[in-house]
Amino acid sequence: MSMNSFGHIFRVTTWGESHGPALGATIDGCPPGVPLSPEDIQVWLDKRKPGQNKYTTQRREADEVEILSGVFDGVSTGTPIQLMIRNIDQRSKDYGDIAEKFRPGHADITYWQKYGIRDYRGGGRSSARETAARVAAGGVARAALAKLVPGLSVTGYMVQMGTETIDRARFDWAQIGENPFWVPDAEAAETWATYLDGLRKAGNSVGAVIEVTVQGAPAGLGAPVYAKLDTDLAAAMMSINAVKGVEIGEGMSAAMLTGDLNADEISMGENGPVYSSNHAGGILGGISTGQDIVVRFAVKPTSSILTPRRTITKSGAATEIITKGRHDPCVGIRAVPVGEAMAACVILDHLLLDRAQTGGMRGKIG
Amino acid sequence: MSMNSFGHIFRVTTWGESHGPALGATIDGCPPGVPLSPEDIQVWLDKRKPGQNKYTTQRREADEVEILSGVFDGVSTGTPIQLMIRNIDQRSKDYGDIAEKFRPGHADITYWQKYGIRDYRGGGRSSARETAARVAAGGVARAALAKLVPGLSVTGYMVQMGTETIDRARFDWAQIGENPFWVPDAEAAETWATYLDGLRKAGNSVGAVIEVTVQGAPAGLGAPVYAKLDTDLAAAMMSINAVKGVEIGEGMSAAMLTGDLNADEISMGENGPVYSSNHAGGILGGISTGQDIVVRFAVKPTSSILTPRRTITKSGAATEIITKGRHDPCVGIRAVPVGEAMAACVILDHLLLDRAQTGGMRGKIG
Amino acid sequence: MSMNSFGHIFRVTTWGESHGPALGATIDGCPPGVPLSPEDIQVWLDKRKPGQNKYTTQRREADEVEILSGVFDGVSTGTPIQLMIRNIDQRSKDYGDIAEKFRPGHADITYWQKYGIRDYRGGGRSSARETAARVAAGGVARAALAKLVPGLSVTGYMVQMGTETIDRARFDWAQIGENPFWVPDAEAAETWATYLDGLRKAGNSVGAVIEVTVQGAPAGLGAPVYAKLDTDLAAAMMSINAVKGVEIGEGMSAAMLTGDLNADEISMGENGPVYSSNHAGGILGGISTGQDIVVRFAVKPTSSILTPRRTITKSGAATEIITKGRHDPCVGIRAVPVGEAMAACVILDHLLLDRAQTGGMRGKIG
Amino acid sequence: MSMNSFGHIFRVTTWGESHGPALGATIDGCPPGVPLSPEDIQVWLDKRKPGQNKYTTQRREADEVEILSGVFDGVSTGTPIQLMIRNIDQRSKDYGDIAEKFRPGHADITYWQKYGIRDYRGGGRSSARETAARVAAGGVARAALAKLVPGLSVTGYMVQMGTETIDRARFDWAQIGENPFWVPDAEAAETWATYLDGLRKAGNSVGAVIEVTVQGAPAGLGAPVYAKLDTDLAAAMMSINAVKGVEIGEGMSAAMLTGDLNADEISMGENGPVYSSNHAGGILGGISTGQDIVVRFAVKPTSSILTPRRTITKSGAATEIITKGRHDPCVGIRAVPVGEAMAACVILDHLLLDRAQTGGMRGKIG
Repeated sequence: MSMNSFGHIFRVTTWGESHGPALGATIDGCPPGVPLSPEDIQVWLDKRKPGQNKYTTQRREADEVEILSGVFDGVSTGTPIQLMIRNIDQRSKDYGDIAEKFRPGHADITYWQKYGIRDYRGGGRSSARETAARVAAGGVARAALAKLVPGLSVTGYMVQMGTETIDRARFDWAQIGENPFWVPDAEAAETWATYLDGLRKAGNSVGAVIEVTVQGAPAGLGAPVYAKLDTDLAAAMMSINAVKGVEIGEGMSAAMLTGDLNADEISMGENGPVYSSNHAGGILGGISTGQDIVVRFAVKPTSSILTPRRTITKSGAATEIITKGRHDPCVGIRAVPVGEAMAACVILDHLLLDRAQTGGMRGKIG
Repeated sequence: MSMNSFGHIFRVTTWGESHGPALGATIDGCPPGVPLSPEDIQVWLDKRKPGQNKYTTQRREADEVEILSGVFDGVSTGTPIQLMIRNIDQRSKDYGDIAEKFRPGHADITYWQKYGIRDYRGGGRSSARETAARVAAGGVARAALAKLVPGLSVTGYMVQMGTETIDRARFDWAQIGENPFWVPDAEAAETWATYLDGLRKAGNSVGAVIEVTVQGAPAGLGAPVYAKLDTDLAAAMMSINAVKGVEIGEGMSAAMLTGDLNADEISMGENGPVYSSNHAGGILGGISTGQDIVVRFAVKPTSSILTPRRTITKSGAATEIITKGRHDPCVGIRAVPVGEAMAACVILDHLLLDRAQTGGMRGKIG
Repeated sequence: MSMNSFGHIFRVTTWGESHGPALGATIDGCPPGVPLSPEDIQVWLDKRKPGQNKYTTQRREADEVEILSGVFDGVSTGTPIQLMIRNIDQRSKDYGDIAEKFRPGHADITYWQKYGIRDYRGGGRSSARETAARVAAGGVARAALAKLVPGLSVTGYMVQMGTETIDRARFDWAQIGENPFWVPDAEAAETWATYLDGLRKAGNSVGAVIEVTVQGAPAGLGAPVYAKLDTDLAAAMMSINAVKGVEIGEGMSAAMLTGDLNADEISMGENGPVYSSNHAGGILGGISTGQDIVVRFAVKPTSSILTPRRTITKSGAATEIITKGRHDPCVGIRAVPVGEAMAACVILDHLLLDRAQTGGMRGKIG
Repeated sequence: MSMNSFGHIFRVTTWGESHGPALGATIDGCPPGVPLSPEDIQVWLDKRKPGQNKYTTQRREADEVEILSGVFDGVSTGTPIQLMIRNIDQRSKDYGDIAEKFRPGHADITYWQKYGIRDYRGGGRSSARETAARVAAGGVARAALAKLVPGLSVTGYMVQMGTETIDRARFDWAQIGENPFWVPDAEAAETWATYLDGLRKAGNSVGAVIEVTVQGAPAGLGAPVYAKLDTDLAAAMMSINAVKGVEIGEGMSAAMLTGDLNADEISMGENGPVYSSNHAGGILGGISTGQDIVVRFAVKPTSSILTPRRTITKSGAATEIITKGRHDPCVGIRAVPVGEAMAACVILDHLLLDRAQTGGMRGKIG
């Protein structure tokens, strides 16, 4: 139950602050025999890395991962895997003002109230930089998944940025990697670029909705009542910085449906049950159906903006604050690989948890 | 990490099936010295109890709780509290058809696939009846909270049923207990009654959104990164049957906000920081601010309806199913006390977890 | 991490007090499809049951177990199994004196100090009666083991009572069930009877050493560094009331050995590695070798005796106490089935944990 | 429940192999505001460091600890503390032979069987080198304890080496730091030196018993039934490499006592209850009494010796092995600071766990 850990069997503990010497992830419970190199992890870190285009923070971090333990002769040994990322671009001067003032909408004030001390440099532990460790851990999870369930894929993409949404009719998997927003809609990519440019130049920021789809996961993952697959996915996503809402399948809109419309009808396909629709988001009763698993989460806009906001100092004096540092106009962009990583970790963990209890056996249909 | 447990210190394990001899909750980690009687728990179970009006299932259950352990001389002893509720109205004949057929939108098929066996009577473990155990546990949590933080309140209410939503301008706390929908809007209560009557008579069902507000919680509850208060609230709500989405504060709509609008500005009040708004839902960086904590969740419509739906049998044959049993046209109504109970458990748990690590000390402001 | 639970996957939470309405065990994580009836559990409870001969407490308890959940059509469903044992012989008057006085060597005083309240009746939660719940849980573990590893056996027996020890040269498995001490040595059984009669008549009590041997467990159970098989066995045994020492294989005597004598030499047998000896007790580096797993634990003498002992009252006044209730002259006798139960739970748990991480794969030798 | 972690609130995960780039400890749940510098940790690592005299391995490791996170401005922030120790003296050539052969009495064979891969260099994860990470974590625990319970001390010492034991009549706390064996008996120190020299020159090794005493711990630490203080101490010690037995207070000898002799009689002292003796080792019913907490553990002799032992290769061929590397004739010596570290971690953890549940309140006596 450590507070900075998640997962039942494949258990990840992230550590480190934005401006400390390093940050990383301690992974326990990885299956042995998984081929794993730093490059397998680096590819995902590079996807999240800041400074790649004008829509993400210009803070430059190599974000190079080192594997300090748990891998021998190129494969995992089943012992803890320690992943470390050195912090190298720590221009602390950018953040001087926030040592005394609390940024509205930021964890500055709650960390101070709870702990009586906080590493204010770049937000310390509450910095979005912590998510680099999650992405690294997700790289390990993906490597293990590749071995255990070869056809499985985990794909994240943006479906909304501010007031702009994608047109599902134009949904195109191939577009996701072709634009800076990971958006599966070529037209949206163009509109959004203009939209975000405006906000960026105004020193403002905006929220976003990210969707992650897991394809190829077997039926039977998850368990009642508090290790439900959707429970763990919801917790995983809500634990990401700035996330304020999580949805499975139909999500909040399920409230508007009637029972007849919500029911995904079942028929028998060649390889098992087939569903007429996927309002359930691939999960019934907390257990995967074998359909695509669909989870969405909303990211609020960065609170570090150039518009002055009223706040107080540590001594309680009224003041204003603007945050001059290098920040993302839409942190949602970089939340895409983070959401993927969390989903990969949860799916792997539930594969392991399922084979613990059931040995992977399945009730027969047909 | 048991699969049917939640909570770090105040740890609840629910057990039992819809049509077995009994169900209940095993509670570990309750503080000692909490005054506790069966009546303290019964009052919340009665709020959830079915058969109270035409909008909830006509299955009659006394839902009488027995305290089997952990209480002596009227107070908790600090040892495990066992709460048991006998199942008494088990008309199994109502459910005969579902032994062979899988209800679309229901956990029937996933339980079967995962375990190769399922207690099909009334949905077994996946029945909403399991939530009675949560409500009972919530009663214990409320009793402990009453001792530890006297002014704290946990209040749930419906804010949406199907396509109907409340008018926030008419929000009235006093109305919540005055209508069968726990809705804080007298006009909505009337409109909704007509709306739901129509669905009920058609043998259909509809979803809902429930909001739970915690007032009087101190700043400083929660912890990075996976024991964030919002993470645990999200998990708690998502673990409830039929929930498909969870929101904190602004929720999914946070995606539409710009940074300047989202920032809850801070000033200094008499008893500490005061905020100009509460987009954050009382939580920043996973830690409570001292404002109202606001969590919402969407409940999908019951899949047990009278409209025939296409499905398959265990042997894979195509068929249709209608569910004739006694069911709720809107399970969201009875999800209100369940959401409250989960919130109460999470808040208590985080109070205990916080005093474990920090001893309840707080960083001084002003 | 609930305080009254143990196990990683097969997770047992015991609850209940000596003189409350009932006690029991909540079991989460049992594999589905395990044939299980109350009789499968009752047989082990009967082995532990008091009042069977003059060497165990004359308190009479039917100790009848009820399965309240998790079993359907005679097999486990994979959902929580609730086992309840009603307390029926609660002659509270026997224990009146201990409401105000603390028995030396007993948990009376520490429970009071920690919780500020205690159920003094029969020791409440600290009563050896709690071990009935463990034995019941052990019955479930045995049923699951019987399905997963058919040849595996878990056998406990006494090897020392007070100053009397068995003669290993006379060790006879067949004798264990033939005497009231579960001792594998017919001659010892007779000597011990005379020895214990003397102590019993004097109103005194004595300690004991119990050994539990697991035969037929596969190599590969356990994991570094804190889920070592021996770590979990040690914790399981030390958690039993009155236990003050735990040993694996050579145990404390390992301190006296030199490296050449301690090494269990390895050769290749027909079915894998074979060892020349078993100083290791079947565990190397926390992982089972495939040899017999051997764990021993020492039980201190009951502190409830007729000899007056100096103590204090709750108000701090000096006084004396004798405990007139019905007590065991050697609680070690009834600790035998308890030790077996704990070993069975730990072994099952590690089988599940191992297949979670490794899928049951094994490194090849030869 | 990660396999390489221990502790409920103060939770330590160790990671790393003997001959990998680094090893360390990830600590979650440390209270905020604890003054902490690398020097506070280094002092304990230096106590454990090899190569300090002829009785410990000549492998030279600087064992310099780096704090990578969780400390700011010289105090802990309440976020995860990452401690890293680089491995610098990795003469892999010393270990070449063991890549193919399994050392009797060593984890070589079980790691191979379980994982199908092992880092054979220096024993990899099963190396005693892992205990450096524990000692580092113990340094953090000691720093936190110094703040929370100023008078508390944790002291380890050897009480037996092979067939040599200390004379309790000569017990002298001041002697412990004055000899290479951490033995509280000046005469024993001399005798043991001669004894161990003989074994060392013969290329043999020997076991030992270490005792750890915690002075100044308050009454009320621990909890029924599986978070008993003695349960957690037993697990902590048994998880150390080569440990085969653990005792609390009277330990295994409790089996020989009668109830009248075992009872530590209670009287009222100036600051609360006072006991006539301490057979209980400071723990009753799993909860501390306020007396000295006394735990002992036996360490088996190193299996890496110069005497040839029969074994097999990975391909199953019979062979012999001698281990030429640099090894300790008595690993028990270096187990002293390790035992201390584990005790410090457990005591701190239980202080935090206790204040979680009880808020530190105590039942009044007198």
